[in-house]
Amino acid sequence: MAKFRLAASAALLALTFHSTQALADEGMWTFDAFPTAGMQKDYGWAPDAKWLGRVQAAAVRLTGGCSASFVSPEGLILTNHHCVVECAQDNSTDQRDLLKDGFILARREEELKCPGQQAEVVTAISDVTARVKAAIGTLTGEALVKARDAEVARIEKNGCKDAAKQRCEVVTLFGGGQYKLYTYRKYSDVRLAWAPQFQAAFFGGDPDNFNYPRYALDAAFLRAYENGRPVPTPAHLSWNSRGPKAGEATFVVGNPGATQRLFTTDQIAFQREVGLPLTTTMLSELRGRLISAMEESPQQKREGADELFGVENSLKVYIGRQKALNDPAFLKMLGDAEAELKAKTLGKPGIGDPWADTAKAVQAYRDIYMPWRFIVPRSTLMEQALTLVQGAAEREKPNAERLPDFRDSSLELTAKTLLDEAPVYPWMEQLELAWSLSKAREYLGADDEDTKLLLGRESPEALAERLVGATTLADPAVRKALWEGGRKAVEASTDPMIVYARKIDGRERELKKLVDERYAGPLAQAGARLADARFMAYGENVYPDATFTLRISYGKVQGWKERGQDVAPVTTIGGAFDRATGAEPFNLASAFSANEAKIDKTIPFDFVTTNDIIGGNSGSPVIDRDGKVIGAAFDGNIHSIGGNYGYQGDVNRTVVVSTAAISHALEVIYPAPALLKELFGK
Amino acid sequence: MAKFRLAASAALLALTFHSTQALADEGMWTFDAFPTAGMQKDYGWAPDAKWLGRVQAAAVRLTGGCSASFVSPEGLILTNHHCVVECAQDNSTDQRDLLKDGFILARREEELKCPGQQAEVVTAISDVTARVKAAIGTLTGEALVKARDAEVARIEKNGCKDAAKQRCEVVTLFGGGQYKLYTYRKYSDVRLAWAPQFQAAFFGGDPDNFNYPRYALDAAFLRAYENGRPVPTPAHLSWNSRGPKAGEATFVVGNPGATQRLFTTDQIAFQREVGLPLTTTMLSELRGRLISAMEESPQQKREGADELFGVENSLKVYIGRQKALNDPAFLKMLGDAEAELKAKTLGKPGIGDPWADTAKAVQAYRDIYMPWRFIVPRSTLMEQALTLVQGAAEREKPNAERLPDFRDSSLELTAKTLLDEAPVYPWMEQLELAWSLSKAREYLGADDEDTKLLLGRESPEALAERLVGATTLADPAVRKALWEGGRKAVEASTDPMIVYARKIDGRERELKKLVDERYAGPLAQAGARLADARFMAYGENVYPDATFTLRISYGKVQGWKERGQDVAPVTTIGGAFDRATGAEPFNLASAFSANEAKIDKTIPFDFVTTNDIIGGNSGSPVIDRDGKVIGAAFDGNIHSIGGNYGYQGDVNRTVVVSTAAISHALEVIYPAPALLKELFGK
Repeated sequence: MAKFRLAASAALLALTFHSTQALADEGMWTFDAFPTAGMQKDYGWAPDAKWLGRVQAAAVRLTGGCSASFVSPEGLILTNHHCVVECAQDNSTDQRDLLKDGFILARREEELKCPGQQAEVVTAISDVTARVKAAIGTLTGEALVKARDAEVARIEKNGCKDAAKQRCEVVTLFGGGQYKLYTYRKYSDVRLAWAPQFQAAFFGGDPDNFNYPRYALDAAFLRAYENGRPVPTPAHLSWNSRGPKAGEATFVVGNPGATQRLFTTDQIAFQREVGLPLTTTMLSELRGRLISAMEESPQQKREGADELFGVENSLKVYIGRQKALNDPAFLKMLGDAEAELKAKTLGKPGIGDPWADTAKAVQAYRDIYMPWRFIVPRSTLMEQALTLVQGAAEREKPNAERLPDFRDSSLELTAKTLLDEAPVYPWMEQLELAWSLSKAREYLGADDEDTKLLLGRESPEALAERLVGATTLADPAVRKALWEGGRKAVEASTDPMIVYARKIDGRERELKKLVDERYAGPLAQAGARLADARFMAYGENVYPDATFTLRISYGKVQGWKERGQDVAPVTTIGGAFDRATGAEPFNLASAFSANEAKIDKTIPFDFVTTNDIIGGNSGSPVIDRDGKVIGAAFDGNIHSIGGNYGYQGDVNRTVVVSTAAISHALEVIYPAPALLKELFGK
Repeated sequence: MAKFRLAASAALLALTFHSTQALADEGMWTFDAFPTAGMQKDYGWAPDAKWLGRVQAAAVRLTGGCSASFVSPEGLILTNHHCVVECAQDNSTDQRDLLKDGFILARREEELKCPGQQAEVVTAISDVTARVKAAIGTLTGEALVKARDAEVARIEKNGCKDAAKQRCEVVTLFGGGQYKLYTYRKYSDVRLAWAPQFQAAFFGGDPDNFNYPRYALDAAFLRAYENGRPVPTPAHLSWNSRGPKAGEATFVVGNPGATQRLFTTDQIAFQREVGLPLTTTMLSELRGRLISAMEESPQQKREGADELFGVENSLKVYIGRQKALNDPAFLKMLGDAEAELKAKTLGKPGIGDPWADTAKAVQAYRDIYMPWRFIVPRSTLMEQALTLVQGAAEREKPNAERLPDFRDSSLELTAKTLLDEAPVYPWMEQLELAWSLSKAREYLGADDEDTKLLLGRESPEALAERLVGATTLADPAVRKALWEGGRKAVEASTDPMIVYARKIDGRERELKKLVDERYAGPLAQAGARLADARFMAYGENVYPDATFTLRISYGKVQGWKERGQDVAPVTTIGGAFDRATGAEPFNLASAFSANEAKIDKTIPFDFVTTNDIIGGNSGSPVIDRDGKVIGAAFDGNIHSIGGNYGYQGDVNRTVVVSTAAISHALEVIYPAPALLKELFGK
């Protein structure tokens, strides 16, 4: 799951936004299609293949949903603090609170494993479009999905011979216009090396999220291990602790999670009319439930922190998107762009009318959406139970026929995610389960057959209490035994969560089949033709929607005008002291107050650039023309949220924590002399 | 505040809805403009003036936000249980839970006062349009509002000579097209006489709310007192305990709270784009906060019940409205109706272009909306503090210059609402205050001047804790002293809630002035011309939007078709036993289970009619052709929610609890032989 930390204020977007052709600084480009000519034209310079290769080799994807980069020869990884909060929390106890106190080590041996986390580096990208399209042929509906997935499974299996070190993933670009095989070197033992206090990283909290100026030390270090030792990483970025210069060119290299810039107006309408209102309403209730429950005890407050952050962050994104799509001027712009593309391509040979086909698929989806959305109640333990139940059945099938998560190419990561030891909080499991079951009943209706399947004659609260109270799945040994025991073990299990997962498994598969037949299949078919239409109309100057795979964006350090006022591009550490009120979440981290005398308040803290990013880019290195890292992207400004649908260069900004601030923190606020030495190569 | 229990599924509405002229059974008519010809045409019969007068004299408005009726000569009032929940809760203690156990008396002397509640009966309606329009003249903006309000204050003051027994209220109909003076006989001592268990009244809970078939005994009795004695009420409705007959004519007489059927497309757009998304999101979070907090203890569960009911009920209404306005076909229909009216009237003498003027006012409102919405944080104690602060200043002014709540005609009720002894729950005050302050910061921004005014350097949580923790306003004696002490006492007070209210008072007034100048004034001006346009185009066959004043709707007992299936109009008591699962909220009330042997399961329980109602109609008597009461309206079906914007006869239904079921409950489930005798006049 990608963190959705990035997404544009509609009213403003409408001024200059075009969806058809990339504007200056717009675009999340793949490394095999970097727009050299475009950048050359705007900047008088562009990176060459060697520069790009070096950067690609140091770029890291974190399976937890973030981006990162190697910044030393010894496996040291720079990312955001908010990307390691879960790890810090998993490693915290009543005695040792890594969020409150930060994580500052005397010795490297004390670095702590991050459950479920894996680091991945792209080593090759190859075009497999012809193979996948050939397998699809003229198929439609569920048959298309099956044939495509089977061919993808074969390509992935044959592409990676070393399952322990490699991962192969076929990526669908342009909604089915291209298929590319990405090969990754993977590192499945990732440990926490340094983290500041949560309050330093998240200064300003949810109120400041997606806002700017900012004063957040949202940075942390991880380290990749293999066989118990740090991994040698000769291909790493050099650390440059100088501050950013206004106007200088910057690159953001990372894994933007998902954008919807190529959506048709029918897909957009579905979001505006159905998806977004439902999601904002549901997540708001969950937010409220969490906030009150966390006030019950300091322990629950600590345990709920990452979940609440995630919910509030997502909510801000969805509320921002809803606002964008409720702006008639913005909608008109999207509609105009589609009309232009249609005028150039509708009915052309090989194109036909993919818009009408998409409209039909979306219409069909409206009827399946509610049960599909609610059939698996939300809880970590429930997800694990369903993985065990479905995994047992799937692994008995030939590779090409399995559900994607259980293909040979995905199995290791699925198992790791399932089996890694990580704490589960019963109160939160119960809260989320009761919430999602009650929402299912609310939206499906009390008399609906799926509601009856989900609840039987129990209430959401009683059912959640019974399942969470009696399951033993929180014990990793129990999960391991069931995973390894396969179908026999799963069928014999009387664990209530497993019994429940067995009960909903059939209906979940039935709904997936319906979704594939009426929605996903037709969309894949129409998507390929929409992509062809775009290539026909605009040539190669287009980039695919984000897919949580490696992309590069170019831009520059630059502020913007907000209601007529200039917003300066760079803040200083001193600004945090000025902004602090003493009250949460505007209270200074204790290490900032305690070390005030030693802190150089003139050092640059955070800065903004025009780079085009979105959720999943969190932790991405921000790289200067020399290929050196000068910061880590951690957020977008408020105008970046509508970026899901379109980029607007005059106000869309990436928010970055500077290496200057991180270095100063390593020196005097959260001292880590060994890390400093390592970063500076001394 | 009207309970909003009633509001139309958009997709269906679009089929037959016209906003321009009333359809069969459509309309919430005023008693002085009953559409005799229309009903005569459809039903072959219509009530005469005498019939209407008798019914009007027995119709009761409850200032708590509900409708009701006198049903005995001794002041006995029939309403809904959900209209007395607050009263039952206010009178509950740890030892005696009137919600859980119901309220069944041996002797009338044990009837319990309902804090803040007042019963009102319309005694006269007179047209004051000419006077108010003359006072407005050619004024605009804030000047219009001031002149109008001053004239209204004069009319109300002169209209009611006996402040203790009368209340005068000038009602704005057709958005300023008509002004009518309503004179009420008021009863400010209202007591609880009988209530079933909450679980009997609210069987099916929130999941069944706005749904049907239903099995809810949502009925209760109050009694009006004067000088410590039941009020004689010779003008009362006769009780008929026979069940409803399919197809028979029914009248609903009550006080529908508010509809927006005469809104222009710009007003509708504002709701769809701004108001509804904000409201559904905010209320969802409050719902979540309440749900979790109520799980902390049985006491909080009991204390939070009515508030959670109110929030969930409102939320369902707003979500339903949002759904209606996100249906393009429905929006088109509203747009077409407006286009038709425009074609007939735009630019005509005296009409001009009120649509453009409305658009301009709405545009201006968009800029003021956020601060206006957030400037007064939500909490009962905060409201009381602001009433004290503003009341002290207002009462020193001449009557015609005061804010509406402090005019001589309103002062008694304002004081009663403020001073009546009712419990306040500090945990809930703190929860709601912290919630609304954090929402203010979220939507206004942390650096906004109004946010700074509201929060200073405190966090929402700390501020809420400080204010609620230290205020003494929960004590009615303290409020009384401040109210009677006037400006001097209020200015000298160091109570933190009063100090806070003094701090925000100025800004609240400044914003109100802005709203009057740019929005309310222009809308009142345009509204009068829109009403004239409607009269010009459609003559008198139009009814005003609901205004929480007395209306009458005619219709019939009739089911509808839901996804091709017939929904039968009447349920039986036995159905409750079939539907019960044993799990909340589908568990039978204990008195139902305990008395199962005595219960006649064939007796009609709830039923639906085609009457056109909306929130505020809760508790309305449902009357047959003979003028006898055969039920109390307590809800609408799901299709009634879009009724806010338009009525659709084929699916829009009123949900009623039958007098047959209430009588049977009084006999064998919650026995009250004295009440039975009184009802049957024996």
